[in-house]
Amino acid sequence: MYANTPKPPYYAVIFTSILKNNPNGYNEMSEHIEELIKDQEGYLGMESARNDIGITVCYWKDIESIKKWSDNMDHKVAKREGKARWYESYRVRISKVEIEY
Amino acid sequence: MYANTPKPPYYAVIFTSILKNNPNGYNEMSEHIEELIKDQEGYLGMESARNDIGITVCYWKDIESIKKWSDNMDHKVAKREGKARWYESYRVRISKVEIEY
Repeated sequence: MYANTPKPPYYAVIFTSILKNNPNGYNEMSEHIEELIKDQEGYLGMESARNDIGITVCYWKDIESIKKWSDNMDHKVAKREGKARWYESYRVRISKVEIEY
Repeated sequence: MYANTPKPPYYAVIFTSILKNNPNGYNEMSEHIEELIKDQEGYLGMESARNDIGITVCYWKDIESIKKWSDNMDHKVAKREGKARWYESYRVRISKVEIEY
């Protein structure tokens, strides 16, 4: 359930979003992305919860890994589609984890 | 709903937790902490969601503000009580937000 992250420093991408009503195809996209992300170099794990607002935190070894994932084709498609189809709005924050306890 | 954060850099405290069954008094404590945190120096906002796992991200101006909050008496009590009464387990990650979009 918790991401099994190593000793800091490492990176966290905090993705906060509000879904549209009836976001058709969202679950399929979401599962596809979760499958895809697991195989990415530098990926450390993910934590996710949604009520009115959804928060997904993805953990990464370094900023280079995040950049590679961001350039990934399928992910790009999901991002482009996501804006139009699934998300009312979203925020992305890229942060460096310095302390964990 | 979203925290209205400024241009980076600033800090994010990622608090991930699993509640016990019937966490008596949890909602009251949670509301009390939310009231209290609003008045803290350097506090920028909060985003929160819970399913099986709960994720709360609190945003802060700098690491000094986080330290002050961490030393706050009521918060200390909540932390100590929290371990025993409300949380099955939790993780705290302190991170520096470098990029937002």
